[in-house]
Amino acid sequence: LAKVAIVGSGFIGRAWAISYARAGNDVALWDQDAGAPAAALDYIDGVLGTLNENGLLNGRSPAEVRGHMSAAATLEEALDGASHVQENTPEVVEIKREIYTRLDALAGPDTVLASSTSGILPSAFTEHLKGRARCLVVHPINPPYLVPAAEVVPAPWTDPAVVIRTRDFLIAAGHAPIVMKKEVDGFVMNRMQGALLQEAFRLVEEGYASIEDVDIGIRDGLALRWSFMGPFETIDLNAPGGVRDYVERYYPLFARMHETQQHMADWKGKLLDGIEVDRRTKLPKDKLVERQVWRDRRLMALAAHKRRAADEIGE
Amino acid sequence: LAKVAIVGSGFIGRAWAISYARAGNDVALWDQDAGAPAAALDYIDGVLGTLNENGLLNGRSPAEVRGHMSAAATLEEALDGASHVQENTPEVVEIKREIYTRLDALAGPDTVLASSTSGILPSAFTEHLKGRARCLVVHPINPPYLVPAAEVVPAPWTDPAVVIRTRDFLIAAGHAPIVMKKEVDGFVMNRMQGALLQEAFRLVEEGYASIEDVDIGIRDGLALRWSFMGPFETIDLNAPGGVRDYVERYYPLFARMHETQQHMADWKGKLLDGIEVDRRTKLPKDKLVERQVWRDRRLMALAAHKRRAADEIGE
Repeated sequence: LAKVAIVGSGFIGRAWAISYARAGNDVALWDQDAGAPAAALDYIDGVLGTLNENGLLNGRSPAEVRGHMSAAATLEEALDGASHVQENTPEVVEIKREIYTRLDALAGPDTVLASSTSGILPSAFTEHLKGRARCLVVHPINPPYLVPAAEVVPAPWTDPAVVIRTRDFLIAAGHAPIVMKKEVDGFVMNRMQGALLQEAFRLVEEGYASIEDVDIGIRDGLALRWSFMGPFETIDLNAPGGVRDYVERYYPLFARMHETQQHMADWKGKLLDGIEVDRRTKLPKDKLVERQVWRDRRLMALAAHKRRAADEIGE
Repeated sequence: LAKVAIVGSGFIGRAWAISYARAGNDVALWDQDAGAPAAALDYIDGVLGTLNENGLLNGRSPAEVRGHMSAAATLEEALDGASHVQENTPEVVEIKREIYTRLDALAGPDTVLASSTSGILPSAFTEHLKGRARCLVVHPINPPYLVPAAEVVPAPWTDPAVVIRTRDFLIAAGHAPIVMKKEVDGFVMNRMQGALLQEAFRLVEEGYASIEDVDIGIRDGLALRWSFMGPFETIDLNAPGGVRDYVERYYPLFARMHETQQHMADWKGKLLDGIEVDRRTKLPKDKLVERQVWRDRRLMALAAHKRRAADEIGE
């Protein structure tokens, strides 16, 4: 097991801290706001109790997991002895460049420097570094202690051995790493989310279905199987002869649809106005935070269910 | 409650029978193969036991649900007194036209004639009918007794009152109807599945990720939240100010991605060869059926989990 430095201890950083410490790693939290690590640790104390009630601490006690975490007073202290750095600063390329310059200067030569960025390519902020071969993106879906998938995205100059080491480190922490072969805008998950959202916006814009109907189609329909199989395994099991049989049966339908699925709906203007009215009618603005708490409780219950189902029925 | 006629008692028809009878409707099964309804009822007996063990019979006993079902010797007998017909004949437009001609001639004037077709528009096989105003599509995701979503798709001449009556009938049977305002290839769910699959195929074709990595991105990532919220609610809760805030933050990323998301990957040829090799390496052809059984068990456990979570945490 290893020491992890969390650089930037806000929303994403503190969630990573839980995930890494739960796996037995020592985790040092640092932030340029000197009060942030202590605030993160307070928040984490509450989360650990709930995770424990849901059987999601891998048999460890909250105190044991908490005992693996500490607040670092300086960046140097956080990096001292760290084999993995998880950087979670704001999504601004200049800020990423600056912090990576500091990280590369201060961290030992074998330390992996991983960024949580969702929207910036790793090449955009690591090219100038002497140690750029140990830099890459490890992008979570929040919160990583409930969502196993994490994208490992190399820049063109990232050492393949660093990619493999990072993949193995994530697997050891209970994650399901997606190892990209090269970088691209949106990585894997946001590209698929984007493709699906484009169609969701088109269906509403063109008057085929309501916003709620689109949500029903996913939450009470497609996403049930997707939530334990993914889209390729789903189609592989959806025709008697497997994926080739599926494509032979449904290719004409998907190809015909595709003719009207290439344009981008206007995400702003009247369409967005309508979507916002619909959502705010269902959920007033002052209830958003309460609903986010509901979402996190449902996500935790689902994570616990998936572990049970994998044990009892198989994965 | 009502009488339902199942026309075509194969894979889809027998699954609908369970869903409708579980809600207390009387269900008559008919098939042009005279032995099919009895075979369907045998199969159903096994499923009812498993559903009962998972608490998915709405408090009814298997015997009670089974008592609502019968095999009809003739189409006339099946239709006698039926208020809803669920048609599940093969996906061939000529067959649909022919069975709809018979159904329209034999069914009482107030009987709704709903087709389970996934790939044929309702206008393609109902235009010629005197009673075309009571015809529409009700497309399930299989099996409907585990997946609540069902698409209600009117032809241009479908009576809006028939759409509403069908929607209410489905809701009373525990379904989550998607009420389309007009027909379009792929309806809502296959259009969204298609958009996502297009990106999945592109990511693999262009060498960004493996087939398994794409599946991880959905089953261990995006589909967790989607499985209880849908894509619009997901983005509404994913920015502090709701959906408008989300679009303002991420529009540039999604618009940039969209530039490279418009073409259709070659679903056949070398790409499909590679996908098939990958899938058959993970799951040999002779294990497909076993894995489908696993899928249905996981789906049933998930359905039971969702009911529990909705009760305990809220919907």
